[in-house]
Amino acid sequence: MTYTHRHLLGIEPLHPAEITTILDLAETYVEQNRSGDKHSDALRGLTQINMFFENSTRTQASFELAGKRLGADVMNMSMQTSSVKKGETLIDTALTLNAMHPDLLVVRHPHSGAVDLLAQKVNCAVLNAGDGRHEHPTQALLDALTIRRKKGRLHRLTIAICGDIAHSRVARSNLILLGKMENRVRLIGPPTLMPTGVAEFGCEVYDDMKKGLEGADVVMMLRLQKERMDGGFIPSEREYYHRYGLDAEKLAFAKDDAIVMHPGPMNRGVEIDGTIADDINRSVIQEQVEMGVAVRMAAMDLLARNLRAARAA
Amino acid sequence: MTYTHRHLLGIEPLHPAEITTILDLAETYVEQNRSGDKHSDALRGLTQINMFFENSTRTQASFELAGKRLGADVMNMSMQTSSVKKGETLIDTALTLNAMHPDLLVVRHPHSGAVDLLAQKVNCAVLNAGDGRHEHPTQALLDALTIRRKKGRLHRLTIAICGDIAHSRVARSNLILLGKMENRVRLIGPPTLMPTGVAEFGCEVYDDMKKGLEGADVVMMLRLQKERMDGGFIPSEREYYHRYGLDAEKLAFAKDDAIVMHPGPMNRGVEIDGTIADDINRSVIQEQVEMGVAVRMAAMDLLARNLRAARAA
Amino acid sequence: MTYTHRHLLGIEPLHPAEITTILDLAETYVEQNRSGDKHSDALRGLTQINMFFENSTRTQASFELAGKRLGADVMNMSMQTSSVKKGETLIDTALTLNAMHPDLLVVRHPHSGAVDLLAQKVNCAVLNAGDGRHEHPTQALLDALTIRRKKGRLHRLTIAICGDIAHSRVARSNLILLGKMENRVRLIGPPTLMPTGVAEFGCEVYDDMKKGLEGADVVMMLRLQKERMDGGFIPSEREYYHRYGLDAEKLAFAKDDAIVMHPGPMNRGVEIDGTIADDINRSVIQEQVEMGVAVRMAAMDLLARNLRAARAA
Repeated sequence: MTYTHRHLLGIEPLHPAEITTILDLAETYVEQNRSGDKHSDALRGLTQINMFFENSTRTQASFELAGKRLGADVMNMSMQTSSVKKGETLIDTALTLNAMHPDLLVVRHPHSGAVDLLAQKVNCAVLNAGDGRHEHPTQALLDALTIRRKKGRLHRLTIAICGDIAHSRVARSNLILLGKMENRVRLIGPPTLMPTGVAEFGCEVYDDMKKGLEGADVVMMLRLQKERMDGGFIPSEREYYHRYGLDAEKLAFAKDDAIVMHPGPMNRGVEIDGTIADDINRSVIQEQVEMGVAVRMAAMDLLARNLRAARAA
Repeated sequence: MTYTHRHLLGIEPLHPAEITTILDLAETYVEQNRSGDKHSDALRGLTQINMFFENSTRTQASFELAGKRLGADVMNMSMQTSSVKKGETLIDTALTLNAMHPDLLVVRHPHSGAVDLLAQKVNCAVLNAGDGRHEHPTQALLDALTIRRKKGRLHRLTIAICGDIAHSRVARSNLILLGKMENRVRLIGPPTLMPTGVAEFGCEVYDDMKKGLEGADVVMMLRLQKERMDGGFIPSEREYYHRYGLDAEKLAFAKDDAIVMHPGPMNRGVEIDGTIADDINRSVIQEQVEMGVAVRMAAMDLLARNLRAARAA
Repeated sequence: MTYTHRHLLGIEPLHPAEITTILDLAETYVEQNRSGDKHSDALRGLTQINMFFENSTRTQASFELAGKRLGADVMNMSMQTSSVKKGETLIDTALTLNAMHPDLLVVRHPHSGAVDLLAQKVNCAVLNAGDGRHEHPTQALLDALTIRRKKGRLHRLTIAICGDIAHSRVARSNLILLGKMENRVRLIGPPTLMPTGVAEFGCEVYDDMKKGLEGADVVMMLRLQKERMDGGFIPSEREYYHRYGLDAEKLAFAKDDAIVMHPGPMNRGVEIDGTIADDINRSVIQEQVEMGVAVRMAAMDLLARNLRAARAA
């Protein structure tokens, strides 16, 4: 089965077999990126525009490298210092960009739903690089690839997602993906950082780390995103670390071969102990970054194939 | 006839046949940009540097894409956060850049005449991407291409340029180009936003929109550029919209098939009504953006040919 | 002899023959950059990342052009507006980047030693683009190439380095390189801007410009870097110019055919008189910039060869 969508807006609309298609293709790009020749021409002749309405050095770099290594003409647009400031609406910005005939548009936006809205207005393939608290599909896909490589499978695993769930699109996309692949997902965090309505996703909720980590195969820590907490309860870093920071004592409750993940950038000593983060037998944080480039190459390659097929039709 | 200049500093020095040469070549790039393979190698082996001393996401993006799609090595230099701040003079910056052997230098500068000055100091081809209130030649060329495609010709048309004429290099370059091609140009705007000495360009001046739009084939709206109004009369947006904002009532005075143009970014509800801007039967605003990339590709291609011919000689 | 190092972290570890290898290869790139086809494929298939933790339009542009002209996939990361602000440590940033599999990492950092530290954590070749007051090896190499071309040799010359020696990594790298190549180096500057312990480098120290310039073949002026003077003695620009600014009267003490150098950007009327800077018979400031691109191409080419050889082994 191939990937049938025109865009990659979220994990929500994907069939499990489509997720597998992306991950399988990404494996070949892992090899390309580790080789002496990292450049191929899968996207040659196509134009990729990265439109970041919110700063993200890491994600933008990952998409930029992915596109350049595939031979696309890649352009970054920092939308914070742009026409947006001159009062242009999101739709006008989208239509302007669309008129320049990009083939792949990578968009990050602080508002949930903004990327979907934009995708309806353009003729090219849109990749959601994170929109508000909604979705961050390539993050969930890179996490999935990392898990599959480390655990040998992507189903029937017990995966604990820990921390600031309420503000996290990373948690949301992961929750949906891991559920689709038939894993047991647990959410752990203080009740104030837990969204309402998570029960509908069929996951278990804990406010005690030790209980939640019991028997977990994968421990996925989240960044404490103070910048996204608007006027709500903000825990002190010390108190937070004491109750929800991942240290050796708490990690001991997970399985002996449990892996530790973090989307980065890390707040060492806040949500995770530095020693755990650096433990190459447990932490797969660097591998997540590596998988990120490969997954984005795979996603853009598949979207480009669909684009070309649609044009040829 | 070919394009004979070393630079593209303004519309002023161009012969009408040279304008036609640029537009004709741009037509081929419109096709390339609409095709499945947007990348060619016309500028391969050459270096393009974009030097923007003034922010412009839209124009810089257009030049960047143009160069990348033609296979140039393209580099952006944001001169606002650069050596300029360290007190370096414009001439020293130009000489430094020149020593890096660029072939094409795209420059935007807040001061009229700065780009001409710079062009005298370097060995490469210079393209003016807007200098103060002086010229913005590629904008006038993209407007011309849009008009020619929509109206079937670029002569004997009645074209109304409306709004803040005094602060607008877009108006100035358009006025010169449209005059050279033997069109009837009307300038419409409040007397306080009308420059002195426009009579020499042989155009008619109106301060009443309805009279000025009477029988127009093309209605070219300008952005109200408050940032360029230093200490002068600043109209209230509401009052401005009432008298000079393009709405259905005022547009009815133009010809039935008149097209509506705007260089963007638009202030909806200030100089133009959103409904007009979105009316695909009248508004050609998106097409202007599309023509922008094609016209810049054509201009850089022609300048590169002259550069290569001069080197071979 | 070839270049045997994995990185280019400083001039200190280089053998004189290695310096000659870099300069000889750079000569071929001077020719490439002056030709009609500035693009080759020496770095094709490789990824270059420029990581600037400190602003430097000029040096970053030089490295960016060098990599693009050699066919690398080049990515700039402005680390001032990045994860660093989110509290990530330098090591975590390095490991994250390393996981993206760059081949060449160009780093500028405000702290001495930061680039060496980073090089220990990554698998790729690291080029130091300036770290604190420590080293700026490509600047010393480009200065060396400029001198060699203008003077016909790079040994037994009398070279005066003048100005703010204490805060200058440029002075330090030059001092080491010129010493290795058996030149007579003199340091001239006010005692408050002279570092302690320079005697160990075997150079002479002067606080009087005229005495120090007596019989010099090369006069190397430094930028007065007020931004690096933390709480120390800051001379008035007028007083500084009077005593240490290079003007015709002081330059007359050097040899008749002495060349004048400056790493840029210049403070005209502070450390150098504008007339001297513009005198094409004496000033080689533009040629330094030109040599900069060529030297960086040579250094990256040599490092890439070593990388490929190590991978093949």
